Amino acid sequence: MMLDNNSKEELDKIFNFIREIDSEKLIMRQTYISDGSRKENDAEHAWHMAVMALLLKDYSNTEIDILRTISMILIHDVVEIDAGDTYAYDEAGKKTQRERELKAADRIFGLLPKKMAYEFRELWDEFEEQKTPEARFARVLDNVQPMMLNDASGGKSWSEHEVKSSQILKRNQNTHKGSEKIWNYAKEEFLNKNIDLGNIIKDV
Amino acid sequence: MMLDNNSKEELDKIFNFIREIDSEKLIMRQTYISDGSRKENDAEHAWHMAVMALLLKDYSNTEIDILRTISMILIHDVVEIDAGDTYAYDEAGKKTQRERELKAADRIFGLLPKKMAYEFRELWDEFEEQKTPEARFARVLDNVQPMMLNDASGGKSWSEHEVKSSQILKRNQNTHKGSEKIWNYAKEEFLNKNIDLGNIIKDV
Repeated sequence: MMLDNNSKEELDKIFNFIREIDSEKLIMRQTYISDGSRKENDAEHAWHMAVMALLLKDYSNTEIDILRTISMILIHDVVEIDAGDTYAYDEAGKKTQRERELKAADRIFGLLPKKMAYEFRELWDEFEEQKTPEARFARVLDNVQPMMLNDASGGKSWSEHEVKSSQILKRNQNTHKGSEKIWNYAKEEFLNKNIDLGNIIKDV
Repeated sequence: MMLDNNSKEELDKIFNFIREIDSEKLIMRQTYISDGSRKENDAEHAWHMAVMALLLKDYSNTEIDILRTISMILIHDVVEIDAGDTYAYDEAGKKTQRERELKAADRIFGLLPKKMAYEFRELWDEFEEQKTPEARFARVLDNVQPMMLNDASGGKSWSEHEVKSSQILKRNQNTHKGSEKIWNYAKEEFLNKNIDLGNIIKDV
């Protein structure tokens, strides 16, 4: 069976996008993987969050559409291919982050066939806007996954950046809105534990 | 709000599993990422396949449950944490692969709370058995994702292993059963192109 021209053209565009986002594997985050041997990249982070979503979905405060949540998670960092990863506690970087990421979203999602470009952009906007239960739950995982890894790697990334408890609490001021239970667990098992261990500076 | 004991115990198990599978980021495959700078790991591969599933689902021969397909993709390589990656054309390794992976599945999925352990094991078994449209489509992506990357990185992995066209065709003898269109596209754009370029040895 030969491919018709429409399919060929659409598949060219889709595979072009798939090749483009391969670069997410080169976008390094500040979080170390659990054995502390190296930092984690965006593709690994998204995969880890997606598995977490499957396992933790019933801990969302509100019932969520899990396919939509996972779709959002899978592509939420695609813009960092152009815009780079902005570290959670980089206040200067965060000032220009939105502008850099909007430009990236236009270019990268624009590679896709029109309908898919629209769908992916809609998912990314939804994640950014944080108005739906799905977006809020995805953000819970985006915040808790690195806390879990930082704890597993002996608090290495927190120590290196001399992170203070007030910074983590500010960063997580809305985490409870996605999941009270996961936030309570993370606060106890990751935050408070590492304050006690001296890996996080207690300032509040 | 405090966590009740049941939630605490369940979350301990889930987070223990989530930490355990972090090791997938250390399981290296034979495929290079598209710029050829290094090989890809299992976590990155699963993420890449999951995004492909979102974009390519309508190219499945039969309609598929996309959430089930993506769930399968996300965890299909978890067993390699214990069993290691078996290269597609490593005939000796493939003889012991099934046994090594079954043992790994027992241990790793066994870390989860019972209901989730059962669900994840069922997904993994379904992928292995290749009887459902979802499993067949996931396998299409498992085969085509590395072909796409091998092509993007200038055929490096094929050349290094002196891969022959007969090996690729044998490996992909069922790919058309999941998606005629994607298989035809991959054959033309990745296989035949790289035979012409001399990166794959033509022996059939």
